[in-house]
Amino acid sequence: MVLKVHYFDAANRGEPIRLALAISGIKFEDVRIPREDWAAKKAANIYPMNQVPVLEFEDGTMVSQSGAILRYVGSLNPSAGLYPTDILQRLRVDEMLGIVTDVRGKIVPTMRMSDEAEKAAARKELTTTTLPFYFERIEKIMGEHKFSAGDNLTIADLDLVGVIDWLSSGVLDGIPADLVNGYPKLLNLRKLVHDIPAVALWKQKREVVSQ
Amino acid sequence: MVLKVHYFDAANRGEPIRLALAISGIKFEDVRIPREDWAAKKAANIYPMNQVPVLEFEDGTMVSQSGAILRYVGSLNPSAGLYPTDILQRLRVDEMLGIVTDVRGKIVPTMRMSDEAEKAAARKELTTTTLPFYFERIEKIMGEHKFSAGDNLTIADLDLVGVIDWLSSGVLDGIPADLVNGYPKLLNLRKLVHDIPAVALWKQKREVVSQ
Repeated sequence: MVLKVHYFDAANRGEPIRLALAISGIKFEDVRIPREDWAAKKAANIYPMNQVPVLEFEDGTMVSQSGAILRYVGSLNPSAGLYPTDILQRLRVDEMLGIVTDVRGKIVPTMRMSDEAEKAAARKELTTTTLPFYFERIEKIMGEHKFSAGDNLTIADLDLVGVIDWLSSGVLDGIPADLVNGYPKLLNLRKLVHDIPAVALWKQKREVVSQ
Repeated sequence: MVLKVHYFDAANRGEPIRLALAISGIKFEDVRIPREDWAAKKAANIYPMNQVPVLEFEDGTMVSQSGAILRYVGSLNPSAGLYPTDILQRLRVDEMLGIVTDVRGKIVPTMRMSDEAEKAAARKELTTTTLPFYFERIEKIMGEHKFSAGDNLTIADLDLVGVIDWLSSGVLDGIPADLVNGYPKLLNLRKLVHDIPAVALWKQKREVVSQ
């Protein structure tokens, strides 16, 4: 079975899925939709919710929703431990995935703001209040654990580090790229994830199977 | 172990969790926070993310995020089948949970709009475009299945029917209470869920253990 992951040639909601597959040693077809093709793809209405990421199975069945896909691919190779089977451990992973989704949900609306003053104010609020609130709480939940949902790498870390990388890339006007530097546990987590051989290799190769 | 579910005396994100516990035959303490007490609870900062629902364990450990809690309580009694262990079936449940979260995420921002004209326009958009889009897609995904993620009742149905009940209650100005009537599979699903003896009993008793 060759799985296909359909997403833009971007990180955001797609990259944690790709990384989970890479870490699990599962080959997949990395279908990257050029931004300029999205309008046509949307008009062609080929995706179940007209959104990506989408996971496509060999028989053409398609499933939407990044969180659902991430949990599924994180379950494909249980020995990789990316999505634990113990329900209490899984509760912690799901809690963190929910928190990361909330963080993303706070950032995304500011990307759609066309009024520059409104956008600057919203970004300032994110920088001074909202993101520090989440980062402090996440570090508190992490406690003495190295990873965001316990002592082992899980899909929650891939999702959380994805958001940290995004914020740290400096592409979001008005959000200082070094904002995360005040949070040592998050910095350490980012390093731990980037240092995973399969992650480093993936980031180096960015394997793209041509469409 | 007696679990405590902390939430408002409201349905929304709390009721699917309560119903999953009731259907699974698991006793729990139903801690309902009066709306007028929320400001004080928030100031006291007792919840991990300063949000509810929260699941509290007997040792006082608290976990946030409605989706995480719902998946956990849906896993407590595997014979109830509310959250299947088969990863492909679970993918379908998770996909539908994600879609329901998106639907809720489209409605909630309109509740915070103080400008009446803006709110009316947003509600009209929901009624004529957004909600029909989601309802049509959900029915298409359901296909010939009776339930929203396959042939059996799952936590996705409890969450989806919660949103349908909310929309049908008529409390959301500008959204016709009969909007869902155009979607026979959703109507049937609502009936199926309401007719479950444990659900009917719960709705009748609304068991509240005093705090």
